[in-house]
Amino acid sequence: MTELKVALIGGGFMGRAHSLAYALAPIAAELGVTLHREVLVDATPELAATGAAQLGWNSSETDWRAVIARPDIDIVDICTPPDLHEPIALAAIEAGKHVFCEKPITNHSAEALRMAQQARAAGVVTQVGFNYRHTPAISFTKQLLDSGRLGAPLQFRASYLQESSFNADPNRWRAKKSTGGSGTVGDIGSHIVDAAEWLFGDITQVTARVRAKAPGDGGWATEQERLGEDLIDDGAVWLAEFANGAIGSFSVNSFASGRKNRFHFELDASKGAVEFNWNNREEFRVSYVDEAADHQGFRTVHTNNQHPNGWWRLAGLGTGYVEVSAIQFQEFIRAIVKGERARPDFADAARIQQIVEAVHTSAESGRWVDVPARTREER
Amino acid sequence: MTELKVALIGGGFMGRAHSLAYALAPIAAELGVTLHREVLVDATPELAATGAAQLGWNSSETDWRAVIARPDIDIVDICTPPDLHEPIALAAIEAGKHVFCEKPITNHSAEALRMAQQARAAGVVTQVGFNYRHTPAISFTKQLLDSGRLGAPLQFRASYLQESSFNADPNRWRAKKSTGGSGTVGDIGSHIVDAAEWLFGDITQVTARVRAKAPGDGGWATEQERLGEDLIDDGAVWLAEFANGAIGSFSVNSFASGRKNRFHFELDASKGAVEFNWNNREEFRVSYVDEAADHQGFRTVHTNNQHPNGWWRLAGLGTGYVEVSAIQFQEFIRAIVKGERARPDFADAARIQQIVEAVHTSAESGRWVDVPARTREER
Amino acid sequence: MTELKVALIGGGFMGRAHSLAYALAPIAAELGVTLHREVLVDATPELAATGAAQLGWNSSETDWRAVIARPDIDIVDICTPPDLHEPIALAAIEAGKHVFCEKPITNHSAEALRMAQQARAAGVVTQVGFNYRHTPAISFTKQLLDSGRLGAPLQFRASYLQESSFNADPNRWRAKKSTGGSGTVGDIGSHIVDAAEWLFGDITQVTARVRAKAPGDGGWATEQERLGEDLIDDGAVWLAEFANGAIGSFSVNSFASGRKNRFHFELDASKGAVEFNWNNREEFRVSYVDEAADHQGFRTVHTNNQHPNGWWRLAGLGTGYVEVSAIQFQEFIRAIVKGERARPDFADAARIQQIVEAVHTSAESGRWVDVPARTREER
Amino acid sequence: MTELKVALIGGGFMGRAHSLAYALAPIAAELGVTLHREVLVDATPELAATGAAQLGWNSSETDWRAVIARPDIDIVDICTPPDLHEPIALAAIEAGKHVFCEKPITNHSAEALRMAQQARAAGVVTQVGFNYRHTPAISFTKQLLDSGRLGAPLQFRASYLQESSFNADPNRWRAKKSTGGSGTVGDIGSHIVDAAEWLFGDITQVTARVRAKAPGDGGWATEQERLGEDLIDDGAVWLAEFANGAIGSFSVNSFASGRKNRFHFELDASKGAVEFNWNNREEFRVSYVDEAADHQGFRTVHTNNQHPNGWWRLAGLGTGYVEVSAIQFQEFIRAIVKGERARPDFADAARIQQIVEAVHTSAESGRWVDVPARTREER
Repeated sequence: MTELKVALIGGGFMGRAHSLAYALAPIAAELGVTLHREVLVDATPELAATGAAQLGWNSSETDWRAVIARPDIDIVDICTPPDLHEPIALAAIEAGKHVFCEKPITNHSAEALRMAQQARAAGVVTQVGFNYRHTPAISFTKQLLDSGRLGAPLQFRASYLQESSFNADPNRWRAKKSTGGSGTVGDIGSHIVDAAEWLFGDITQVTARVRAKAPGDGGWATEQERLGEDLIDDGAVWLAEFANGAIGSFSVNSFASGRKNRFHFELDASKGAVEFNWNNREEFRVSYVDEAADHQGFRTVHTNNQHPNGWWRLAGLGTGYVEVSAIQFQEFIRAIVKGERARPDFADAARIQQIVEAVHTSAESGRWVDVPARTREER
Repeated sequence: MTELKVALIGGGFMGRAHSLAYALAPIAAELGVTLHREVLVDATPELAATGAAQLGWNSSETDWRAVIARPDIDIVDICTPPDLHEPIALAAIEAGKHVFCEKPITNHSAEALRMAQQARAAGVVTQVGFNYRHTPAISFTKQLLDSGRLGAPLQFRASYLQESSFNADPNRWRAKKSTGGSGTVGDIGSHIVDAAEWLFGDITQVTARVRAKAPGDGGWATEQERLGEDLIDDGAVWLAEFANGAIGSFSVNSFASGRKNRFHFELDASKGAVEFNWNNREEFRVSYVDEAADHQGFRTVHTNNQHPNGWWRLAGLGTGYVEVSAIQFQEFIRAIVKGERARPDFADAARIQQIVEAVHTSAESGRWVDVPARTREER
Repeated sequence: MTELKVALIGGGFMGRAHSLAYALAPIAAELGVTLHREVLVDATPELAATGAAQLGWNSSETDWRAVIARPDIDIVDICTPPDLHEPIALAAIEAGKHVFCEKPITNHSAEALRMAQQARAAGVVTQVGFNYRHTPAISFTKQLLDSGRLGAPLQFRASYLQESSFNADPNRWRAKKSTGGSGTVGDIGSHIVDAAEWLFGDITQVTARVRAKAPGDGGWATEQERLGEDLIDDGAVWLAEFANGAIGSFSVNSFASGRKNRFHFELDASKGAVEFNWNNREEFRVSYVDEAADHQGFRTVHTNNQHPNGWWRLAGLGTGYVEVSAIQFQEFIRAIVKGERARPDFADAARIQQIVEAVHTSAESGRWVDVPARTREER
Repeated sequence: MTELKVALIGGGFMGRAHSLAYALAPIAAELGVTLHREVLVDATPELAATGAAQLGWNSSETDWRAVIARPDIDIVDICTPPDLHEPIALAAIEAGKHVFCEKPITNHSAEALRMAQQARAAGVVTQVGFNYRHTPAISFTKQLLDSGRLGAPLQFRASYLQESSFNADPNRWRAKKSTGGSGTVGDIGSHIVDAAEWLFGDITQVTARVRAKAPGDGGWATEQERLGEDLIDDGAVWLAEFANGAIGSFSVNSFASGRKNRFHFELDASKGAVEFNWNNREEFRVSYVDEAADHQGFRTVHTNNQHPNGWWRLAGLGTGYVEVSAIQFQEFIRAIVKGERARPDFADAARIQQIVEAVHTSAESGRWVDVPARTREER
């Protein structure tokens, strides 16, 4: 394999982000293959042509089925709204393409599990856009946890906060259940769930409270209104229990004034602790129990090429959104080249969707809800 | 009233902290009364005499009943281990003394409610040592919330983390249920519950997971071990629902490496948000929704005499533990002088104890647990 | 004009960085022109071919003179070591090409001034790689200062610190005066001088102390050793006086343990103050004198598309090194398309080189050294 | 010696601060002596009596000469405006009293040197109120530097910034040269000079620019106006060379919007670096060169009783202004009890005054100005 041709389905915000990331990925590191941004698919010929020109794709199309059918296409990257993910992904899998899909892969875990199963059966590589976990500081945390340097997992505290719903268009697709699906729990909560499971292991149970905002500058809608009017959720809190006994608390809110896409977690383990804040994403913050008594405390390490996927020797040079997204695609391409499983793949994403649904179920039932165990294949 | 004489029961860590705070309180602000650190009570004549000399009390005693019986004593301040709080407090109330009691006022809410009831019946002023809420930044947050400037409460996220249990003496009183009682939930979790209710209003329900640490540098004990061996809790997570519909997530851990007495909360409301971290206790951090589009974000305001209980005109001069404790006593003394209710009083503390117990009950039952509503008198 | 073809001279660290930035620039924003990464020039055919393939250039060459002679090339981008900048730049200017040159454009201000003069005479657009000033937070600061919102400039404090010289190869080109030229003052100090003049106006005088490190883990070499052995400088401090009366203090050090490419400045003006730290480059930090008395303090604004050159609506999405470099090229391309002067151009860079030299001259003479005034054309 | 009686001269802002600190000092740590706050001296009988009652002194007086003459007084603490320091201090020394004096001990180094000389001749212990250096994080830095753990001093960067001159009373004593004397350089700059010499060793030379603010919200006054009208300085920048070859940059400004008494320094040495910010005074921030390659960076250590003068085992409990001031008096009392030299004493303060004057002299002459070397006795 010396070349890989990508078809991008959807030229909106995420399509643009992916285009930027594909532009960087092969320059920033040797991938062992030549990557072609081959074709951009969008709803109309004008949109598709303009998008291809602006976003740097070789050609444009409007019919995603025709593109998937092309034998020269190796990778299908799905950036449509979530309700279109499933048919496109299934068709691409059936055509033997490797598939990158934005999250949520669907708004229904049953669909997601079926997608994962078919991808595995077809032997194609899949990956889902939980981009934040590819930040070098998080990858390094994973290494330290897996190596035992931090000891046994104890507590995970995470939040993902945005102020994006203040003054937002009430008719945007994220605001409607038919398109936006799982609301803040699925949209941003899924990222912190992904980080939690990646780092601390499988979650077995959750309990939750979920809220939708009432119009105007008042408080939350009542639960009667939220469930009766089938409103999308704007905020939530939940607890999780992990298979290894660790416990976690999670919060999301899109009405969090002043919060700038703040994906944040703190984890305590029996030999150390780590903190990560996307707002300072170059900083790996760690504390170890065995430090000298007069030197106990967190150290702030700016990641560089001493850490996984760091591009530069000079720490502090600066890692942005596009750079982390490019790392995500580097991982995906490397998995394809090596014929290995990429992470997080459709199986991981299906599981995250199960947890998102368990949060919603728990909020309605008022009970702890079990998350199904992974099969051996999914692990 | 021109003079107030205080008897301090217990000369340990908290007795020393109170002594420092009493020394500052009347110098830092005009209280309208002369305060006498009259007598220190401790277990033996030697301990009491040494303590009185070191901590600056006029005399020493060993019999707290005798001291309470003295007509010249106006205030009884209880700094003993928690299991002795109730008999001393009830005796002091019966003798018509104003009572300051360290938290938890007891390890059993039923006792606490009885103490609160008797104090109210006796017409004495009581206050409990939830000192952190007296930080000027928190008092100012309370003013802004009450004035409506921040809008309707939406979400409260809080944690109180310490690394104090690493390398701690396993025989310390905090480590035993008979003396330490409610573990981290009661010891440090109670502070964040106090702040939450003070700022966001009454909590109606909680659900929780609670953990005790296994010996060595492994993870948590199993729940079977924790409940079977009646171990004190070392960490917990819980959710809360507030009467006004707001939701909250709470975490405590005494095995949190690198965390230096980190009492921390973030609150989102419909017109703004506030963040507070005791590690930077002079900083009031606030964001408002109605700022100009290119100036949205948190501002960091160092409290000074423009804010409640600020002693100095020069912001950034520095507010420490002893200073905030002194503010606590200034509030207590002012309430006595004015004949008003002090906050948080025994009724508030009883309620916090109810919530602490609800957290434990929920952890055992796996269900949301209701917190009893306050009576009109308790509000 | 609908197309622009770029020739990149030099495929090392900066060549790679420029390649990444060129890949992003036209995707991230509409530039009104199609950009072709046409040819990469490097020392040997192998280096050039490998570089072109890896860094995404259409072809490769070894003879920069031949490339400059090609009529299809519109832009020459110079990423060689500094001692080669001048001949390449002069040839490119003579051939009527627009020239982007990495800093320092030369190690001698007289050369730089001549380069600037010839570029102006030839009517080509030039720009120099003082990339940090293109950070949206800095561009926004510039707007606020120019608009008068911050009042009159008072004091500028800046430092640029790295730990890169610990454990560095003593034979690297930066370590030798013949190639590295102006040491830390020229290499990193020039960036803070650029920011200072861009924001606060022209500098008229400087006074300085400059140091070179002695081998091993001891302190500085003596001045006798530094000057006698013609050592490159590893650290320096200097003061500056601005034409408007403002004053500034500046520090650089490449032996600053723990400092991760920390480009940092604080500026005080008569109606407000701003702080910027490249390590948190998305944060625009500002304080205004006219805020309410209980809300005085810095606010932290994460830049987004409300600010100059912000790509995203969602603040906090993340701005990295490559993204800021891409903004730099967007500015350059826009200037070419519009036929306007780009900033900072060769004239600005020549001036910065004059200040770098004045710092060195002052360190040797022990006196304040005047910086020549700009001509009207250079302003 | 079992008792020490203190006379406090001056009941203003600093008198109140000292009263608070004296109240804490003997409670917070065993001093080996009983301390009596014996008498407060103020300008009128009413002021003195009210002050004594409010600030907790046993008695009040108006005639400082009479108080100094009292044989029962052991310590004279001078908190008057600076122009009265000298006569009171000399009288106290002559009477054989130990003397604590607020800074600046005088506005003239010649006077200060004479005061230091007479104190030494009289064998009394003196100390001057450079309180910040007693912060545990700074004392610990001193220990690490002296032990060699941080290697050889390289660069010191410091600033002390306040916004206190915005909206200040133009008739306050600090604003007039006859009383306020040395302006921001002497008032706040002296603190960072004290820290610099304490940590990095003696300064040998300085060069400076000094500014006074023009009225209104415009910029600085011209140097002609500043010198012609003998205006007090409101801001300055200076460089320093240390005897060991290290270099430093210093900035002060009292028109620094948003700066909350920000005393800040960073120091780089050949094996490590330290940063300190009074706004986060519990944090000792250190980086070491010899850390593992993937763990390079600053660690943040909250001081506790593992560090010099830490009162509490629990780090993060909180250290405020009054607490650090109390540490200052603990050091003074211990020196008296042990019969040792206290630091910083009158000799240290005289030297700081020499440097303050050298800064002013340099600003007028435009030249580097030598600071006299210490005699062996002064070291």
